[in-house]
Amino acid sequence: MNRRVVRGVSELYTPFDRVEDAAFVVDDGRYAWVGPAAALPADYAGWPTIDLGGSAVIPGLVDSHTHLVWAGSRVDEYVRRSAGVTYQEIAAEGGGILATVEATRAMSDAGLMMLARRRAAAFQRGGVTALEVKSGYGLTTEHELRMLQAARRLGEDGPLRVTTTLLAHLPDPAEDRERFLDRFVSETLPEAARQRLADAVDVFIEDGAFTLAEGRRVLEAALELGLPVKAHAEQFSNSGAAKLVAELGGLSADHLERATPEDLEALAAAGSVATLLPLAALLLRAPLPQAAQLRASGVKVAIASDHNPGSSPLFGLLPALQLAGVATGLTVHETLVAGTANAADALGRPDWGRVQAGAAADYLVVNGAEALLPLYTWGQPSIKEMVIGGQTVWRAEG
Amino acid sequence: MNRRVVRGVSELYTPFDRVEDAAFVVDDGRYAWVGPAAALPADYAGWPTIDLGGSAVIPGLVDSHTHLVWAGSRVDEYVRRSAGVTYQEIAAEGGGILATVEATRAMSDAGLMMLARRRAAAFQRGGVTALEVKSGYGLTTEHELRMLQAARRLGEDGPLRVTTTLLAHLPDPAEDRERFLDRFVSETLPEAARQRLADAVDVFIEDGAFTLAEGRRVLEAALELGLPVKAHAEQFSNSGAAKLVAELGGLSADHLERATPEDLEALAAAGSVATLLPLAALLLRAPLPQAAQLRASGVKVAIASDHNPGSSPLFGLLPALQLAGVATGLTVHETLVAGTANAADALGRPDWGRVQAGAAADYLVVNGAEALLPLYTWGQPSIKEMVIGGQTVWRAEG
Repeated sequence: MNRRVVRGVSELYTPFDRVEDAAFVVDDGRYAWVGPAAALPADYAGWPTIDLGGSAVIPGLVDSHTHLVWAGSRVDEYVRRSAGVTYQEIAAEGGGILATVEATRAMSDAGLMMLARRRAAAFQRGGVTALEVKSGYGLTTEHELRMLQAARRLGEDGPLRVTTTLLAHLPDPAEDRERFLDRFVSETLPEAARQRLADAVDVFIEDGAFTLAEGRRVLEAALELGLPVKAHAEQFSNSGAAKLVAELGGLSADHLERATPEDLEALAAAGSVATLLPLAALLLRAPLPQAAQLRASGVKVAIASDHNPGSSPLFGLLPALQLAGVATGLTVHETLVAGTANAADALGRPDWGRVQAGAAADYLVVNGAEALLPLYTWGQPSIKEMVIGGQTVWRAEG
Repeated sequence: MNRRVVRGVSELYTPFDRVEDAAFVVDDGRYAWVGPAAALPADYAGWPTIDLGGSAVIPGLVDSHTHLVWAGSRVDEYVRRSAGVTYQEIAAEGGGILATVEATRAMSDAGLMMLARRRAAAFQRGGVTALEVKSGYGLTTEHELRMLQAARRLGEDGPLRVTTTLLAHLPDPAEDRERFLDRFVSETLPEAARQRLADAVDVFIEDGAFTLAEGRRVLEAALELGLPVKAHAEQFSNSGAAKLVAELGGLSADHLERATPEDLEALAAAGSVATLLPLAALLLRAPLPQAAQLRASGVKVAIASDHNPGSSPLFGLLPALQLAGVATGLTVHETLVAGTANAADALGRPDWGRVQAGAAADYLVVNGAEALLPLYTWGQPSIKEMVIGGQTVWRAEG
């Protein structure tokens, strides 16, 4: 059934607007019309109709920052950090990101895919219809491309929508720093572009990773190849990365624990999204920008899981939205916008994460009459059905 | 199969001790022996053996503070609070707890049971093998007993272990305050005791609920009937409730956001458990006692979900353990003890929540070789199998 009218929607968040007793029309995987049921145009009178019987609807959730492809275990590091060892101390021992690089390089393509699929399944059960997956645990061209291939294949498998990002995560300690960067911009990046494996390019600008100048070099090389850019910015220190993203017209600056009001204003002026990663901030005991400051800057805020085995072992987006609400003071409605439309904008996909004419028909039928219920029930998604591109992906039993 | 040896356990937390390459013996629903596989006594040589193939094991999780039986919705209140309206302002409007009282009284027994069973199922999927359920949304004798009956029936249904607590939650605004208390201690309490519907008695000592003197009256009446006691203590203000629990030799003092070091020391000296309810603290923006202070006092710490529709809409214990770790600085291992053995002690059931000879054989087979994995994966339980009383309750697919 490619075309249909959906009625009996008690409450709909588009996510910007709240519509009571709503209806919408799906045609060939996209919304053809959205509004109050009473205003449904007569043109659709003869179309097949589904009645949701008073359930609410929200857009499918979009997770705009994940490191989903990885192997190995960092449970022991997590346990040690809970006993007071710092992230930086573990990195200095060769643990942390480099431990994941070693395990990821050693894992077969099939093994990487199996692990990524299992994790993606958890995100889907939790209401995520689209997510971004970064490379960054390969470091060599071969292994970075292998990670991007796994991410790309995950999207091709469907039904989850996947965008891929080539991430300059850390210099490879096995390689001279200058040489690593030369190779990254002259080989890894163009090869990822040529094979259409990367939808965007990201760089981790931080002490222990890349300097601001190095980050600029990576992102400018990406722009020359026509790839949109973003950065891991202002996580442990304020480096100027957010302003660089703004200057380059990037999609988003992510983390921002140490961002200044000026950083947020620069992002707002450029139309770049400010992406908050609340579990990483909580686990690393860093502050997050506060709601008043975010609102004053006018910046578009996204919230993402930052799924990764070190600083954010989080298997879903709803907990991130809930944690961010508590940590920043953003309202429940603001966090929904941050996990749908704004997150889609951070992926350069303004046709995702919203229920409006022309957008992709990716939505969640809530297990109740109140649309914000899934953001209220901690540890329980409260979703009855997931629809991607107009097709039901799963329905809860009972 | 009532008796068996379980081997091939890569790592076991008892939860106090960590045993590598462990084995244990289950006989008639209890552990007969626990230790390193190499030390398994020869007596068990001929017993049926299960090999877990290198999976880890932890005790079943125990949630020692829930308000699981309720009806109605407080999603709207949650959304309003996220926009700055306070818990106290909502209570003053007749919302909050009183809104749930109204909806719970109006719901049929069958309806209450259905809702409670659905919620309990979510806890079971998340690794909880035993939980406490409080009354407190009835207020009248009739409705308080109806709530306790629902909780009792939930335990009788099995396999989840349930303890029930009669809670003096709020004075009924429809009744004179003095008269309410008289009736509670002379009718509700003795009737709950006579019908064996309450395993313990709890009172909410706080501005807007009961005074310290009123709380003492309720708890002393409970002790006279032979029922163990506990209290909602020091949540919004320091009232002396924790010291009252200590003085009366109560099972636990719960909340403790405003507890002093002396309160914790008094609980420690009395052998009463200090129960932290991290989501309520986070959502109401209250501080939690910090790890150093908890350790210095020597108090036994439990962590619970405080599942309730207002201040803690949480459907599982693992998120509470994870949130408490972040908020207090307790280690991952300490939070596991707080969600198993110490929580069982807070229920007066020192034979639950631990893998040791004589205890009930309630355990979780972890979906991996590392026992602390379920505490590391946020939003994903990472449990392969749940066993209660030696019987498998569920096994993960695939």
